[in-house]
Amino acid sequence: MNVNLSTFLPGFSVDCVLFGFHSRSLRVLLLKLKNADTWSLPGGFVYQEEDVDAAARRVLKERTGLGEIVLRQFHLFGKAGRVPEGHADRLEALGLVKPEAADWFRQRFISMGYFALVEYSQVQSPTLDPISELCEWVEWNELPPMMLDHLDIASLAREALQKEILEQPIAISLLPKRFTMPELQALFETVLGRQLDRRNFQRKVQSHGIVTRTNERRQGGAHKSPWLYEFDEAQYRRACEQGLGPMA
Amino acid sequence: MNVNLSTFLPGFSVDCVLFGFHSRSLRVLLLKLKNADTWSLPGGFVYQEEDVDAAARRVLKERTGLGEIVLRQFHLFGKAGRVPEGHADRLEALGLVKPEAADWFRQRFISMGYFALVEYSQVQSPTLDPISELCEWVEWNELPPMMLDHLDIASLAREALQKEILEQPIAISLLPKRFTMPELQALFETVLGRQLDRRNFQRKVQSHGIVTRTNERRQGGAHKSPWLYEFDEAQYRRACEQGLGPMA
Repeated sequence: MNVNLSTFLPGFSVDCVLFGFHSRSLRVLLLKLKNADTWSLPGGFVYQEEDVDAAARRVLKERTGLGEIVLRQFHLFGKAGRVPEGHADRLEALGLVKPEAADWFRQRFISMGYFALVEYSQVQSPTLDPISELCEWVEWNELPPMMLDHLDIASLAREALQKEILEQPIAISLLPKRFTMPELQALFETVLGRQLDRRNFQRKVQSHGIVTRTNERRQGGAHKSPWLYEFDEAQYRRACEQGLGPMA
Repeated sequence: MNVNLSTFLPGFSVDCVLFGFHSRSLRVLLLKLKNADTWSLPGGFVYQEEDVDAAARRVLKERTGLGEIVLRQFHLFGKAGRVPEGHADRLEALGLVKPEAADWFRQRFISMGYFALVEYSQVQSPTLDPISELCEWVEWNELPPMMLDHLDIASLAREALQKEILEQPIAISLLPKRFTMPELQALFETVLGRQLDRRNFQRKVQSHGIVTRTNERRQGGAHKSPWLYEFDEAQYRRACEQGLGPMA
């Protein structure tokens, strides 16, 4: 890294769990460290004059190119021992940090965890950071070995997402503008990690009035072409304020 | 302050919004700075070797004497400009920090906000910190002028509490072991900031099965002595997992 580390606040970082949804599976954006079988969450440090939330937004923008991403603080990772001894040495041995920068990575770091949501197709060619050789969407069920406590961070973010999808209109951020009812159900099922009864789900969605049917159908499937829907965003917001309930 | 500030992590603090409930009003524990008409939340710094959550717990224990307090992270206050210029000079002018410590208070501080819940009667004689001359319960509707962004911190904590009381069995922490149905309703009304219909509320509470009636009545009131109830904690937890809904 050629950046001047002294421009950052010492001992503090942000880590972002970016969720996408594609082909009925929940995915997270991960980076693979150069020369190692270890992956990491997109993350970074906070400039001396930068708001912490803005740093998380910048990190995601650097990876995805997108400035407007739904972003939420969900947990502060503040255990005294969360950066294990030897972490900096390992990064140095892998050639990922220069010897003069290794002391920076020997510090204790407190990290603010953010989760973020994006419509998967908007992030097709994510951008590498300087210490990584891959940046890609990974299926939730196939998470690889991860650096530090990044697996814990991802797991807690998933729990926060499960809560959030029953409380906030976040499906808007995860689906394309038009979608079928089975796609909407698959999103809820994937995030919640359990099957939902089709009829109850449709009844709930309709009683809340959170979608409106368009005049178009999805073309090209083997089966009868299903109707496409759009969110009624104002009504979706109102329904969330009243409480969506268990959705099936 | 005679503590050695270098034993703390630089640039990072915790602030705690401790809620209690008494005489149908929501209260928060505040400290009044010596020689100033300014109050603050209980807060402090994090020792180099201390978990951040443990620091918040220690701060509350120092003020209340209680080790087991329900404590939740709710928001990180990470704006670059949250400590205004002149803050350290003001503390020094008030005689609250020594000149050699003023530089510590000139740093940018990121602060983790916690809210905490306690049964009011357990905290009758809170303990002062070194820069304060009062430490007492203040009614939510009468919050005084507060230091830095502490009023914003308190307001966001209240919002988090409003969410939490519909999702988690936190009334257990805020009420004495035995309570009347009107007291339970008053707690929900006070936290939510709105009146609830008495009959609907009782029906909800009973359908969730979250309380059981004891064989005792509250003595000594002018009116007919009301029954005392206790929480069925296991059932209250289950009901929260299923979703309490709007409670009236």
